[in-house]
Amino acid sequence: MIFAPPAIVQNAAKEAIDVVEANQYSHPRGRARLRNALAASYSQQFERQLDPETEILVTAGANEGMFATFAGFLDEGDEVICMEPFFDQYIPNITMNGGKPVYVPLRPPTDAADRVISSHEWTLDIEELKSKITSKTKMIVINTPHNPIGKVFDEDELRAIGKVAEEHNLIILSDEVYDRLYYPPLDKFPRIANIDNLWERTISVGSGGKSFAATGWRVGWLIGPDHLIKYAFAAQTRVVFCVNSPCQEAVAAGLENSLVQPIFQDQIDQYIKKRTVLSTLFDELNLPYTMPEGAYYILVNTSKIQIPKGFEFPEILNDRGDDFKMCYWLTKHIGVCAIPPSEFYAKEHWPMAANFARFAFCKTDEVIEQAVERLKGLKPYIA
Amino acid sequence: MIFAPPAIVQNAAKEAIDVVEANQYSHPRGRARLRNALAASYSQQFERQLDPETEILVTAGANEGMFATFAGFLDEGDEVICMEPFFDQYIPNITMNGGKPVYVPLRPPTDAADRVISSHEWTLDIEELKSKITSKTKMIVINTPHNPIGKVFDEDELRAIGKVAEEHNLIILSDEVYDRLYYPPLDKFPRIANIDNLWERTISVGSGGKSFAATGWRVGWLIGPDHLIKYAFAAQTRVVFCVNSPCQEAVAAGLENSLVQPIFQDQIDQYIKKRTVLSTLFDELNLPYTMPEGAYYILVNTSKIQIPKGFEFPEILNDRGDDFKMCYWLTKHIGVCAIPPSEFYAKEHWPMAANFARFAFCKTDEVIEQAVERLKGLKPYIA
Repeated sequence: MIFAPPAIVQNAAKEAIDVVEANQYSHPRGRARLRNALAASYSQQFERQLDPETEILVTAGANEGMFATFAGFLDEGDEVICMEPFFDQYIPNITMNGGKPVYVPLRPPTDAADRVISSHEWTLDIEELKSKITSKTKMIVINTPHNPIGKVFDEDELRAIGKVAEEHNLIILSDEVYDRLYYPPLDKFPRIANIDNLWERTISVGSGGKSFAATGWRVGWLIGPDHLIKYAFAAQTRVVFCVNSPCQEAVAAGLENSLVQPIFQDQIDQYIKKRTVLSTLFDELNLPYTMPEGAYYILVNTSKIQIPKGFEFPEILNDRGDDFKMCYWLTKHIGVCAIPPSEFYAKEHWPMAANFARFAFCKTDEVIEQAVERLKGLKPYIA
Repeated sequence: MIFAPPAIVQNAAKEAIDVVEANQYSHPRGRARLRNALAASYSQQFERQLDPETEILVTAGANEGMFATFAGFLDEGDEVICMEPFFDQYIPNITMNGGKPVYVPLRPPTDAADRVISSHEWTLDIEELKSKITSKTKMIVINTPHNPIGKVFDEDELRAIGKVAEEHNLIILSDEVYDRLYYPPLDKFPRIANIDNLWERTISVGSGGKSFAATGWRVGWLIGPDHLIKYAFAAQTRVVFCVNSPCQEAVAAGLENSLVQPIFQDQIDQYIKKRTVLSTLFDELNLPYTMPEGAYYILVNTSKIQIPKGFEFPEILNDRGDDFKMCYWLTKHIGVCAIPPSEFYAKEHWPMAANFARFAFCKTDEVIEQAVERLKGLKPYIA
């Protein structure tokens, strides 16, 4: 049952409900216990002593933390570089705050339709990135481990991006909500904030919901230098004022526990098994896919799957890419729901996603076994 | 111990933590159980059958609900009428979304420095309101029961405001977070959405935190017609995505319980006692104040209090109004913290707040008794 928070975290939430003041307003920066726990847990990760007073901001989920960052920094017309595919919330979060998203693609190898590839083989062309920079560019958004690809950017890749950010004085927003979930042979999660001087221009984003399988708690955080965090803090104080109090206590308990118990390693071990069950099935089906280095998604290349002629799609799908039709058919005919990745592309780039479907393995073992059984029904439709 | 949520609500929160799916993402509109409970509880209040699918939106606290409303409706340069004094979050919530606050005062009677007045004697001059309307005016914000005055607008007052809104096609945002807390002789809380046709142009704001003494849960709601709620919903989905799940279950349990148990009346009874303890003390001190019809604040007229000459204030207060100096002295010398109401006025109107201090009685009886003892120390300083 990986889908429930660890027992110690659940219990801490219940204990907090019993404490009168833990049900009342928290400090808008976050409760002291949680900020201290984050400092204790992340100082090692960021290779510096984090100041819980100024360098950590607890947010109402990672999403709101990113919204508050855009609200704090963007002026009308400022441009923000986003890599495609992107987590879909980035775009309205940018445009609602007056910004303009500018896209640069992560590209799979040209033979991605013919073989299983590693998520690491999706790459950013640095020259292409540079070509997108204008006098209006203010920020660049990185997502690692990446949703939906599963790519974990390595230090060289991050350094190259950071160099561009330095040359053009850009702020880096590094969405690292899956930072506790990366797979061997990776034995360390590279953070752009740790490279050269990039700490000074980077806000890193974390998630209690992703770290402790409690996505409904809406507890996330931003980590970065005071001179950046203070703008996100100012915005957040107005957007939500403060964050759910009892669940902050629970996340604090989880982080405290992670310093003495291998709870993140345990989660990794469980997710590796789930990943293997699903990838083995795709191997059997001879469907190429991207093996993720982190997070809990497998991007499958669906070009070999032939939807029977005459299958009727609802009219609403006429305006969407082929990936929507594939995912609709998979849901209706096979009984397994995948996400069409054109959701993660700007409309003009939907064709880039046409042959992919994203399968999530953040599910109980029972659900995954059931999905595998159903997906075996794909065999007759694979060319 | 009124300051803790009711036991049934606390227990429901703990039960929810034990349910796996109640720790995961909720529907961005809010959990079905909570929306159904809100519909059951508020349909009577709004004198219509509320549709939980379209007319109710659960928000990450009332604050974020209002932010999302402004985000959903305001275009650059749109004007929003706010009554002074105003709850301080309104202003940045408006300006962050491109709007411009326009102020119209609630005025106390001219002899408010000489006697105890009712919060009802603070009034809005409708002609003055009309004079503030321009072609850019898009919304008007009402706050009833009012923070910091405690005023509950009556039907005639609301109808007059509503008439102006109709004439100029304005949206009404009615902040009613203290709607469960009004005092006799009031036996009904008047809602502007229930008057004439005003439902069609009104979003009403409620608060689980205020209703169940759990301000740290960050669960609020918007109620209004689908054609208005849908814009706030669209914005909220991007700002926070969804709201804390287990606390939504708990608030639902509280609302369900309120249909069969007089829990709101019990809270009112307890707050009346607290209000009496504090107002009796101000009577003894011969300090005029505003007796609130709702909410849990007493606005005291401090013009009779003489701060000893030579008392030194920190430099930072030089730029603020006299009310800040008074509240500073009260905190430092008397040991009781009050809020300086110029926080609730635009800078150019700070002098209107110079002679007031806001005392909150949302405290345990023990804390209030202790405050009363300390405030008796004011006697030598009252002219």
